[in-house]
Amino acid sequence: MNIQDIATKINGKVIGDAQHAIKFPAKIEDAQQNNITFLANIKYLDFVYLSNAGCIVISSDVYNENMKGNFILVDDAYSAFSKVLSIFNAEVTTEISDKAFIHPSAKIGIKAHIYPFVYIGEHVTIGDHCIIYPNVTINAHCVVGNNCILHSGAVIGSDGFGFAPIPDGSFHKIPQLGNVVIEDNCEIGANTCIDSATMGSTIIRKGVKLDNLIQVAHNVEIGEHTVIAAQTGISGSTKIGHHNMIGGQVGFVGHISVAPFTKINAQSAIAQTIKKEGLVLCGTPAFDMKQYFKSTIVFKSLPEMEKRIRDLESTINQLKNT
Amino acid sequence: MNIQDIATKINGKVIGDAQHAIKFPAKIEDAQQNNITFLANIKYLDFVYLSNAGCIVISSDVYNENMKGNFILVDDAYSAFSKVLSIFNAEVTTEISDKAFIHPSAKIGIKAHIYPFVYIGEHVTIGDHCIIYPNVTINAHCVVGNNCILHSGAVIGSDGFGFAPIPDGSFHKIPQLGNVVIEDNCEIGANTCIDSATMGSTIIRKGVKLDNLIQVAHNVEIGEHTVIAAQTGISGSTKIGHHNMIGGQVGFVGHISVAPFTKINAQSAIAQTIKKEGLVLCGTPAFDMKQYFKSTIVFKSLPEMEKRIRDLESTINQLKNT
Amino acid sequence: MNIQDIATKINGKVIGDAQHAIKFPAKIEDAQQNNITFLANIKYLDFVYLSNAGCIVISSDVYNENMKGNFILVDDAYSAFSKVLSIFNAEVTTEISDKAFIHPSAKIGIKAHIYPFVYIGEHVTIGDHCIIYPNVTINAHCVVGNNCILHSGAVIGSDGFGFAPIPDGSFHKIPQLGNVVIEDNCEIGANTCIDSATMGSTIIRKGVKLDNLIQVAHNVEIGEHTVIAAQTGISGSTKIGHHNMIGGQVGFVGHISVAPFTKINAQSAIAQTIKKEGLVLCGTPAFDMKQYFKSTIVFKSLPEMEKRIRDLESTINQLKNT
Repeated sequence: MNIQDIATKINGKVIGDAQHAIKFPAKIEDAQQNNITFLANIKYLDFVYLSNAGCIVISSDVYNENMKGNFILVDDAYSAFSKVLSIFNAEVTTEISDKAFIHPSAKIGIKAHIYPFVYIGEHVTIGDHCIIYPNVTINAHCVVGNNCILHSGAVIGSDGFGFAPIPDGSFHKIPQLGNVVIEDNCEIGANTCIDSATMGSTIIRKGVKLDNLIQVAHNVEIGEHTVIAAQTGISGSTKIGHHNMIGGQVGFVGHISVAPFTKINAQSAIAQTIKKEGLVLCGTPAFDMKQYFKSTIVFKSLPEMEKRIRDLESTINQLKNT
Repeated sequence: MNIQDIATKINGKVIGDAQHAIKFPAKIEDAQQNNITFLANIKYLDFVYLSNAGCIVISSDVYNENMKGNFILVDDAYSAFSKVLSIFNAEVTTEISDKAFIHPSAKIGIKAHIYPFVYIGEHVTIGDHCIIYPNVTINAHCVVGNNCILHSGAVIGSDGFGFAPIPDGSFHKIPQLGNVVIEDNCEIGANTCIDSATMGSTIIRKGVKLDNLIQVAHNVEIGEHTVIAAQTGISGSTKIGHHNMIGGQVGFVGHISVAPFTKINAQSAIAQTIKKEGLVLCGTPAFDMKQYFKSTIVFKSLPEMEKRIRDLESTINQLKNT
Repeated sequence: MNIQDIATKINGKVIGDAQHAIKFPAKIEDAQQNNITFLANIKYLDFVYLSNAGCIVISSDVYNENMKGNFILVDDAYSAFSKVLSIFNAEVTTEISDKAFIHPSAKIGIKAHIYPFVYIGEHVTIGDHCIIYPNVTINAHCVVGNNCILHSGAVIGSDGFGFAPIPDGSFHKIPQLGNVVIEDNCEIGANTCIDSATMGSTIIRKGVKLDNLIQVAHNVEIGEHTVIAAQTGISGSTKIGHHNMIGGQVGFVGHISVAPFTKINAQSAIAQTIKKEGLVLCGTPAFDMKQYFKSTIVFKSLPEMEKRIRDLESTINQLKNT
């Protein structure tokens, strides 16, 4: 494949040798003459001058004539390079491993790739074009839409964590009769757990992307196109709005709702309902992120601040006594 | 099944049409004429008036004659409805999958359900009436009591994380010779990890309920009927007392002990031994929860507080110079 | 085996009955006459006087002649006892389970132990003397060095979490073409996830020890002999230096680097590059640990501090008006 072939596919304009051959994509600092790479972040601009890459995908705004080598000019280099990666990505194979367990009552759509050691329980429904990596468990009655990717070790439809206290101090398990519904175009990270609802469904709306090691408790609902980073946990019955962007290791208490377009910084705790759209939150418990960072700066100097108060108190005592 | 059948089983009193047929339980906001539902939390009282449910299980204290429809009156609606769910819960089947690996030296009790891709190592002992979901690993010499449920991806008896530093800056693995003992009536969540003891046993006492993605390190002991929410981590040799209630994403340092009946809020860090029973803790490091929340309110306004101190300092300087 | 046999192997000096027979190691509080145990931490010194152990491995500095029983004196009791444990540790067997899936193009070194339900994908390379526990996934093109241990449920080479936003509000998956490289002598904990690089490799340098449930995102690099406790998460493209010691539940933002010999306390958040070697950090965001603990002490009394400021303000107002 040459540079012109790639430029045509990503709708870009070639500067330099359009016939130059490209073998594979690489990072800008590693790229050699047979590699294509990209510059999306101005912070790394110096790399363009130092790079030995065969071709660099770059925004027309950023390119200038002092840059030497071959380029493909595009509007949005990040998004265009994502298409370049797709060109070089291995063809998805369609295969259902005979080392997977698929209950006879389960329904699997067309063009699925189901790897070894996947467990698919009774009456599970899986849509078209899904990839289910090794060691995934999908328990009875769960539903997975079209074009979904479930990474290794993900557990869909484990029992919700519900127990009623008994007077003798022990707990009685509350049966979990519901299921999990994952709509179209979702990606579920490795070792992420999504519990079944007690009754009804735990729902992952279309386009949601969950990273690895996330906990989604029973009866949670996650709105369309919300993206959640690794190790975040969402407690029972909480409803996350659409288009949220949620960092890693965030915690949500149960039975609250979060407005659409909320952004939540890593390690925050969301302890109550967020009604206003578009907030940017941070902290335990979370509040406005800018305010939070101002508070953390003062937090560092709390011991000195306490001393300043002590000094003030002693000065005032002197003043009062004179 | 009709309402009278159910009322008899949960020891309740029918108001309305005792012969009305019920097909399945549902949430109060979703319930239709063939569903039974419940009201446990007064917060949701309005739903009773709006619900289309065929029957509502409700506390005698909460019911009043203006409520229309069919009801079963009970003392404790939450606990009673848990019994209703049990009535409709699928019969637990007894089956040992031929796609599981069970070492010939392992002993499995009666009426076990062992799913595909479960690994049960040498000399493992598993009690009666256990359910072990797909992709669970139980390593050599571990012991599981009666009536336990192990959810998918749980790992019982992975090596404790112990390394001795070597003068060359590398680490020497400390062999982990112990095991894990899980007593009767425990539930272990999906992808939760319980490490083997270095020597002796990591012990999960009877009735303990662990949610998903929890880390239990080597030589930990968790007391009877303690309940722990998802993503909490307990470091090596720490002993948690009985009847603790521990939130999600909590961390415990190693080699400490926590008194019985302690409640710990989500995302807290327990950095030292808790001797007094019945405390309610929060924070990193944790202290009294009410006090913690008061401190977090002030934390939000730290920048203004710093300004107030600056103002005081400047006013005092003026006063001193007059 | 008798005490003299063990002393010879760990290069120690016997005090007491060198012919006394030892069957197995045990904890000092549990040890009986046929057990060997150790004292490494002076805090537990009283146990030496109370112990019923057949033999205690103890530092020459700590031993005194009032102690009764049999002893092996060594320089470093912790490290010496680690060797004792090795003596009693079960011989590692060499076996590739026929219930594992190994792609025909994968290469496995000598003396590997590969357990049931392990998935090893296309063109994976695994070195010599590796132990791969049940339910591990190693995806295509990943590389594992010699003497590595991968615990159950670990996922090596899941897709990096990369998505490009699309103008319609949805996300386009960025193909992940890279792999994971784990160098020699590494240990990867149960249910830990290491994502493949977008391009190039996510790299775990030699001697790294990762505990359970850790998240390592795409293009991360972890330096030699760094040790990381459970449930920590490292975001994309971050580079951790060599010989770091990192506590549990720590979070790292993406695209930063951390100097060698950094120590990071549990639950901290590392939000920017750490350039100086040897720092000890704590907090969200993290700073000097000692300073952090001083600030947390003041944090507890913030409400009283606010009151002291109010009192000062009112006193000053009175002074000004007189």
